Amino acid sequence: MPIPAPNLYPPFNIVRLSHVEYGVTDLAKSRAFYVDILGLQVTDEDDQTIYLRAMEERGHHSIVLRKSETACARDLGFKVFDEQGLDAAAAFFDQKGLGVQWVDRPFQGRTFRTRDPHGVPLEFYTRMDRLPPIHQQYALYRGVKPLRIDHFNCFSPDVDASVAFYNELGFRVTEYTEDAETGRLWAAWTHRKGGVHDMAFTNGLGPRLHHTAFWVPTPLNIIDLLDLMSTTGWLPNVERGPGRHGISNAFFLYVRDPDGHRIEIYCSDYQTVDPDLEPIKWDLKDPQRQTLWGAPAPRSWFEEGSTFEGTTPVPATLNATPIVAP
Amino acid sequence: MPIPAPNLYPPFNIVRLSHVEYGVTDLAKSRAFYVDILGLQVTDEDDQTIYLRAMEERGHHSIVLRKSETACARDLGFKVFDEQGLDAAAAFFDQKGLGVQWVDRPFQGRTFRTRDPHGVPLEFYTRMDRLPPIHQQYALYRGVKPLRIDHFNCFSPDVDASVAFYNELGFRVTEYTEDAETGRLWAAWTHRKGGVHDMAFTNGLGPRLHHTAFWVPTPLNIIDLLDLMSTTGWLPNVERGPGRHGISNAFFLYVRDPDGHRIEIYCSDYQTVDPDLEPIKWDLKDPQRQTLWGAPAPRSWFEEGSTFEGTTPVPATLNATPIVAP
Amino acid sequence: MPIPAPNLYPPFNIVRLSHVEYGVTDLAKSRAFYVDILGLQVTDEDDQTIYLRAMEERGHHSIVLRKSETACARDLGFKVFDEQGLDAAAAFFDQKGLGVQWVDRPFQGRTFRTRDPHGVPLEFYTRMDRLPPIHQQYALYRGVKPLRIDHFNCFSPDVDASVAFYNELGFRVTEYTEDAETGRLWAAWTHRKGGVHDMAFTNGLGPRLHHTAFWVPTPLNIIDLLDLMSTTGWLPNVERGPGRHGISNAFFLYVRDPDGHRIEIYCSDYQTVDPDLEPIKWDLKDPQRQTLWGAPAPRSWFEEGSTFEGTTPVPATLNATPIVAP
Amino acid sequence: MPIPAPNLYPPFNIVRLSHVEYGVTDLAKSRAFYVDILGLQVTDEDDQTIYLRAMEERGHHSIVLRKSETACARDLGFKVFDEQGLDAAAAFFDQKGLGVQWVDRPFQGRTFRTRDPHGVPLEFYTRMDRLPPIHQQYALYRGVKPLRIDHFNCFSPDVDASVAFYNELGFRVTEYTEDAETGRLWAAWTHRKGGVHDMAFTNGLGPRLHHTAFWVPTPLNIIDLLDLMSTTGWLPNVERGPGRHGISNAFFLYVRDPDGHRIEIYCSDYQTVDPDLEPIKWDLKDPQRQTLWGAPAPRSWFEEGSTFEGTTPVPATLNATPIVAP
Repeated sequence: MPIPAPNLYPPFNIVRLSHVEYGVTDLAKSRAFYVDILGLQVTDEDDQTIYLRAMEERGHHSIVLRKSETACARDLGFKVFDEQGLDAAAAFFDQKGLGVQWVDRPFQGRTFRTRDPHGVPLEFYTRMDRLPPIHQQYALYRGVKPLRIDHFNCFSPDVDASVAFYNELGFRVTEYTEDAETGRLWAAWTHRKGGVHDMAFTNGLGPRLHHTAFWVPTPLNIIDLLDLMSTTGWLPNVERGPGRHGISNAFFLYVRDPDGHRIEIYCSDYQTVDPDLEPIKWDLKDPQRQTLWGAPAPRSWFEEGSTFEGTTPVPATLNATPIVAP
Repeated sequence: MPIPAPNLYPPFNIVRLSHVEYGVTDLAKSRAFYVDILGLQVTDEDDQTIYLRAMEERGHHSIVLRKSETACARDLGFKVFDEQGLDAAAAFFDQKGLGVQWVDRPFQGRTFRTRDPHGVPLEFYTRMDRLPPIHQQYALYRGVKPLRIDHFNCFSPDVDASVAFYNELGFRVTEYTEDAETGRLWAAWTHRKGGVHDMAFTNGLGPRLHHTAFWVPTPLNIIDLLDLMSTTGWLPNVERGPGRHGISNAFFLYVRDPDGHRIEIYCSDYQTVDPDLEPIKWDLKDPQRQTLWGAPAPRSWFEEGSTFEGTTPVPATLNATPIVAP
Repeated sequence: MPIPAPNLYPPFNIVRLSHVEYGVTDLAKSRAFYVDILGLQVTDEDDQTIYLRAMEERGHHSIVLRKSETACARDLGFKVFDEQGLDAAAAFFDQKGLGVQWVDRPFQGRTFRTRDPHGVPLEFYTRMDRLPPIHQQYALYRGVKPLRIDHFNCFSPDVDASVAFYNELGFRVTEYTEDAETGRLWAAWTHRKGGVHDMAFTNGLGPRLHHTAFWVPTPLNIIDLLDLMSTTGWLPNVERGPGRHGISNAFFLYVRDPDGHRIEIYCSDYQTVDPDLEPIKWDLKDPQRQTLWGAPAPRSWFEEGSTFEGTTPVPATLNATPIVAP
Repeated sequence: MPIPAPNLYPPFNIVRLSHVEYGVTDLAKSRAFYVDILGLQVTDEDDQTIYLRAMEERGHHSIVLRKSETACARDLGFKVFDEQGLDAAAAFFDQKGLGVQWVDRPFQGRTFRTRDPHGVPLEFYTRMDRLPPIHQQYALYRGVKPLRIDHFNCFSPDVDASVAFYNELGFRVTEYTEDAETGRLWAAWTHRKGGVHDMAFTNGLGPRLHHTAFWVPTPLNIIDLLDLMSTTGWLPNVERGPGRHGISNAFFLYVRDPDGHRIEIYCSDYQTVDPDLEPIKWDLKDPQRQTLWGAPAPRSWFEEGSTFEGTTPVPATLNATPIVAP
């Protein structure tokens, strides 16, 4: 099943991924991780919820931590270009029978919730409270110096189907991994905002959230984070890296928050705004696909992820195995 | 005169700046500068012309060097999203009485030339020959490791008027410098592709091309370029920097090619895709506007630029003086 | 006057420069500068005195700040290899008629004060309280991440004479600047510990302390410091840089503390342990001597320095002018 | 067996490690590795031998590659402070019954060969041809931008005995790994020149050369090397890293040359010139000892090494197992 031609004229304009809410079981511990170690900035907090933004973000929040009985991921938030587009998006999801529920979200304007065909909870809005710039308040920079949320990656039980659906929404494939035996997609990276991805899919028990990624200035900030985590008791939370992905060419590190939610720290992908950008194809068995420098990902990276609240993941329909670290 | 509200629904979709042709008087010397020192890759060349691309570009060229009697800049090239948009753009410029001339350009599809109201020569196209990716061919990286063309900056005799016109084309202002006394714009940064700028304007004798900028991975690559230029006979071609701009927050260096064409080397601005991004205002007299670390630009930076072929620059209507290095 | 042959068998073994005490007029303000901005670690403090060390130092202090009526520099401290050497050093200075005074220094073992022939106050000791390593406590790193004190630089009214004297003490010249007209030394860099310098001399009204330097990991830490200082009210305290010195090849930044004491932040010189290392000669009129990239130092850099307490500087006997920024 | 007190007054002054000769089976292939990939500079070559230096070295060679039937390591070269010391060193080894053979070495002055008690072939000299500085010829920098040879690491069948012997020569222990069960040394790092090591020992089948290390400017150069090797056919030659060692705090990468000789690329250890520097003790079972960030070394790293020509390694007397990657 070849990847679909890009849909250059989607029915509405999704600008970019925007934010996600994590259910966390120990708010103080999660705060320590996201604020003291990663260096995100608190924009609002009470005893139930913490709102966070990265250093160059002017929207009110990109990560919301909410005290919960059970760890989970909630809606993946996307920003729509204008209010007309927002209504068009609601109509689109309604028509697909995926359900549309207009909700009140603090610090956001009109917002509706829905789901993708595999059950990934999504949230669309146009306006969010805007905060003054802090990217030149260098005294506030801490930890890995996170600049902005970059992308989501989800386990999908059927990556071909996920790509087809998001393609309809105007997400364009930049790179993808094919299983040579079946010709099916094992993974795909799709974007809206002009980088390698806003949303990626990995074959596996899904839907689950594989990770949320933050962009940082240089590889040295990632090395700083490793030094910090490994000498402040957070060493067990380092899962994979540092390394350079073959796919996307990004310098990466994967860490886990206190509930196991996976965060990617990331720099140096490339610009993808050209509508005629040719997707790059990788073979599932190519070890440099995962890591240009050869080191395979650990088993946990292929198997563990955050369950979306109220969702029951199902096994992938494609049974194909990547190279896994022993 | 306040900056205009962004035009979110322009009559056609300009994707990004794309390329520029420089008239150069000594092709071999210019080749040494752009290829051996900066590290651009030759994609085609004969005894009259050299086509160059940066490491992550898949379009055929972003810089064209053409042997000329006199040094000059020629058309500033922009990529339009689709062929319909290209026709709409031609109609737009024609209607404005700015002239539209369909031209044959090697390695490009349908292309027309026109001018902006101040006489800046422009070139629009949709398709350019696509080349295989080389961003992971690390043995090819040289010099400053240029990744992609980032923006043009032009001297304008009337920045308010320039901004108004490009705003109509859908360029959105991200930052601007106001002359406090008159309330007029002294400079402005406007974008299409989601960074701080595709096209910027600086008050001065114009139209002239102030500089073309290339994006590089980290500040250390800029330091490498300084070390290289200062020990290979190119020291006189270093004009300003390194430093961090207050405006755009970019780490920068300005160098001059053998004909004096100014090239900016640049990294680390920020993402601007949100349609409700608030422009940042700077005061002309704020020394940190130019350089966050305080060093003023030299006089040449305010006065010298590349003349567009066939254009006679006129003095600026705003007479206001920035801080200049003694 | 040629530079003297290195004295490979000095009468005692000075291991390295060690520490300096600054008289400061506002202890709180100086603490903010050295601790919050530069990132030195407090090892002891009361309302009169603050002891500081850098991240990889295990000796108790490399900078001592003492509340004083008038800003001044006090003894330049050097560590001697063993107690026998310390006694030999005392005998040497006594024999030269330079005065030897054994003093009690908190946190140090046997220590004597003396002066060099131009009146620079010196302090020699062998043992200082040793503290546990903190170089892997990455949560403590702040500011420019200073790793260790690197060198002193003093204005000398007669650099030839200074070099001759320190040569006798076993300091070996690594690089030097000659005034072509007179053949005299305008500046010299001399080392004990295997880097480009422990002690350097610059022609000028002296003796005065030109600066104390700290070593940091990479140029990016210096860029971080510039960003931090320029956005926290310390911009006026940035004096020169960033740049790469021709001499020493070091990437540098010069900043001034609240009393005007000059601190150099510094990385990447080279190893000089070979006894047959050939000194590198520079011409005073070579602009790349100061800064490989061409930018001349500002006038203040040539004229201002810290007066040593109780010392009256005298004009230099060599009247030769380097290139100065306009 | 505790580590011995440092011998601060050795019978002669070894300045630093200096050079090593590798027997290589395919000179052209080895040249490609050391020159094109690592970036060492050729100082002399014919069809049998290639002499190489790193960018800040002024001695004629630090690596010698010699065409050989079988891959092997030959003499580990050390520079002695003066000719008297060289004679004292010869007398010392002769007295120990280790054999002293004066040899002709191209580009070196008086040189003798000998062996340490475990059979490691050693070579001592005082004078080597000196070459003009090239550290500021930035156009010559390539590959990982190697600045200087940093240290040797040898497998020793009895690390306690090795440390005792080199301690007698004046090598001072900076860090060491103890086997908690037996109290014996599993590894030790010893220095002469003021860094963490000139010579290190690792428990294992020995004597064999574990690796030779080169110092580079920043971690980014190591990332550049990984990118280069992994896209030019040298990926199988990457063995371990990148990472930060707990021991020495260095950022490291281990690569293998075409014959399997192991080269470490290395930056950012610390200064150790203080004679009272306290050695840092690590436990063999501490995973952060190997890599601060937790990743264990692969089995090959513990088992493979270069055989010294004419030497038959013997098993280690200490049978203790570090943590090994699965």
